[in-house]
Amino acid sequence: MTQMLEAMRGNITEAMKTVAADEKLDPEYIRKMVAKGYIAIPDNNQRETVAVGIGENLRTKVNATIGTSTDINDLDMELEKAKIAEEAGADTLMELSIGGDLDNIRRTVLKNTKKPVGSVPIYQTAVEAIEKDGSAINMDPDDMLKNIEKQAKDGIDFMAIHCSVNRETLKRLKRQGRNGGLVSRGGSFISSWMVHNDCENPLYENYDQVLDIVEEYDVCLSMANAMRAGALTDSTDRAQIQELIVLGELVDRARERGVQTIVEGPGHIPINEIETNINIQKKMCKNAPFYMLGPIVTDIAPAYDHIVSAIGAAQCARYGANFICYVTPAEHLALPGPEDVREGVIATRIGAHAGDLAIDLERFGEDDIAMAHARKSLNWTEQYEHAMWPADAKAIRDKRPPEADDTCTMCGNYCAIKIVNQWLDKADKDAFDN
Amino acid sequence: MTQMLEAMRGNITEAMKTVAADEKLDPEYIRKMVAKGYIAIPDNNQRETVAVGIGENLRTKVNATIGTSTDINDLDMELEKAKIAEEAGADTLMELSIGGDLDNIRRTVLKNTKKPVGSVPIYQTAVEAIEKDGSAINMDPDDMLKNIEKQAKDGIDFMAIHCSVNRETLKRLKRQGRNGGLVSRGGSFISSWMVHNDCENPLYENYDQVLDIVEEYDVCLSMANAMRAGALTDSTDRAQIQELIVLGELVDRARERGVQTIVEGPGHIPINEIETNINIQKKMCKNAPFYMLGPIVTDIAPAYDHIVSAIGAAQCARYGANFICYVTPAEHLALPGPEDVREGVIATRIGAHAGDLAIDLERFGEDDIAMAHARKSLNWTEQYEHAMWPADAKAIRDKRPPEADDTCTMCGNYCAIKIVNQWLDKADKDAFDN
Repeated sequence: MTQMLEAMRGNITEAMKTVAADEKLDPEYIRKMVAKGYIAIPDNNQRETVAVGIGENLRTKVNATIGTSTDINDLDMELEKAKIAEEAGADTLMELSIGGDLDNIRRTVLKNTKKPVGSVPIYQTAVEAIEKDGSAINMDPDDMLKNIEKQAKDGIDFMAIHCSVNRETLKRLKRQGRNGGLVSRGGSFISSWMVHNDCENPLYENYDQVLDIVEEYDVCLSMANAMRAGALTDSTDRAQIQELIVLGELVDRARERGVQTIVEGPGHIPINEIETNINIQKKMCKNAPFYMLGPIVTDIAPAYDHIVSAIGAAQCARYGANFICYVTPAEHLALPGPEDVREGVIATRIGAHAGDLAIDLERFGEDDIAMAHARKSLNWTEQYEHAMWPADAKAIRDKRPPEADDTCTMCGNYCAIKIVNQWLDKADKDAFDN
Repeated sequence: MTQMLEAMRGNITEAMKTVAADEKLDPEYIRKMVAKGYIAIPDNNQRETVAVGIGENLRTKVNATIGTSTDINDLDMELEKAKIAEEAGADTLMELSIGGDLDNIRRTVLKNTKKPVGSVPIYQTAVEAIEKDGSAINMDPDDMLKNIEKQAKDGIDFMAIHCSVNRETLKRLKRQGRNGGLVSRGGSFISSWMVHNDCENPLYENYDQVLDIVEEYDVCLSMANAMRAGALTDSTDRAQIQELIVLGELVDRARERGVQTIVEGPGHIPINEIETNINIQKKMCKNAPFYMLGPIVTDIAPAYDHIVSAIGAAQCARYGANFICYVTPAEHLALPGPEDVREGVIATRIGAHAGDLAIDLERFGEDDIAMAHARKSLNWTEQYEHAMWPADAKAIRDKRPPEADDTCTMCGNYCAIKIVNQWLDKADKDAFDN
């Protein structure tokens, strides 16, 4: 039985208890939210994971995507990337390989982590069709379902499935006109197939069969957002909102089956549109957890898109997005290497945390508050303890050691805190009253 | 005559013309805004600079702070930092040295740049008092004015002067209670002097004399914000707002003399309070340009405070702050080195630009829109041309060269844009209508 069906029947599962403990919330609250579909716990029944909750009122989670490409295919590097992502603070992984022995890569990654792992099964179907027949237009609809089932059996916890790239959304995209066009990889495979075969998207037509499979293995559906803009100038357009309407209907149908869902969102979008995007997603999809990709808030900073995306991530978390896919410095330029993965996770974690603090500083900011005290008392040991990446902080200070142990080289002997502690703080409370 | 007095008399100066051309705005608009004090052009009459406008309706500007400390004092490194900051896109510099031959460092930096340069003259007075008599409590009030005059003569374009650390604001700070206390270096010098001497702040008492000096050299006053919070948990408190009220009065008095002002703001502050801070500053200070320091939007990411601050900078720019002081990865840990300076400028420029795009994508986003077309047409030369840091982007792609020239190693041969260009875009506009 799926987590959601258990929740609907009033049962609090081990996974729900883990999430409740992790978030310092009541297990019954988690159960209620899972039953409604406001919280998802991606947790395939074929594989053991440490449960992670994604949704309303929870800490905003961060996903790190790994995977080979046709140009760079090195399993050891992917395992290293997975490890580095976890160490840096990723909550989940997505394994999106498109080069090499896809089954082996996926299974090896799954064996090496206790984190929930996501995938995009259409990639495998497209890659196999390209290798066999030269193009994704030759994909066999049966293979789409077979790969979903194979990956579900392997233990994938959440799957991005492109059901909403249908004739209706593509019609709206065609009428819309765009500068950047469609940029979703899964969307490009499906749409080329639809154009060539002049047929409806098989994943949309056969959505009930998709649900049969993911229900059996309790895979959480990550409703893929193929119409997301690939440029700020295309953001929040009719094609995207049309797809969101379809996604909302698909969420309803999944919930009827007790299948958990999260819904993917943009993309490239200026910061002033982020709140609107989250509000409309929450309405169209009846509070399904929202999974933002990036977002990218300016298009002209390639090499620094992790910083670009941290800005977007903060806005997302603040306005109620629940899950954020990281972006690395290699975005738009190359397949990320291990160091890119680390920088990407760090930047997105900072953004997610900054947004969470804006929601509730006391609840999410225990370390921030402790840091204030550690800084005020010039206690460097405690400052490192409460830092998100203590070793990195220590390395910077240690590289340029200060003359006085309790300061740093920024102000040296003229440390403002030291001077204030010595003078202003020692003055009487009413020293300035007259 | 100051820029502001010229503007009040209806004269459009060369500096105003430069700013107008730079911003693609009407020179008469710039003049009007300078006359009102809504735009400042820091441009000391003793030194030639390329004028930079800061204020309403202009591109958000970024300041990079350089300067020695007592622990690390290397003039060549400071010159290198200044050069790197300019190359990375800083609009102004602040020279805040507190170690070594301060006059020589300042004069050498001023000689080596055409950018507007700011300073905090109280640092020199405090450093000299500490060197001579062991503590900033021994500062001579006359020296405070003398150093302002000396630095004005040297050609400093804008000065952060701590006039608002007065008995009234310190009274409110004492009553407020805080976790992080007062963290402004200038504020720590002045407040310790006030406690020890049991007197009002000489810079507040002698504000008219300060105005005499800065008017003579047309130095723009950067009204220092000593009560800014040093921890998120202290943000936007009564001490800070009390100081803002005092700052507003000081802005009025400066404007009466035709002295340009900008007003400094926080600091450590959660993202949800940024809009409020800007709105209240604009009201209290009658639309004086707002200069945000950072802001830092979480306290627990030392080593990555440049990313933390980019998140804050984006919010600032979006809600109408006009000028942002960068933060480097070394913040809270060490004196920044050249590489830190570069990373700091880049992160803050990204934040400022993302905020500007949220105000007006068409006006500030010409390169963003061009990038959309360059990406869609897989034109890498143009992609680099429109990137903020082309060499960095090119280096990432070139390090992992793709098999196909028109793609990158992220997707390799399965480039979504390529597939969409080949199939979906070639389908008729009405292909999905039935």
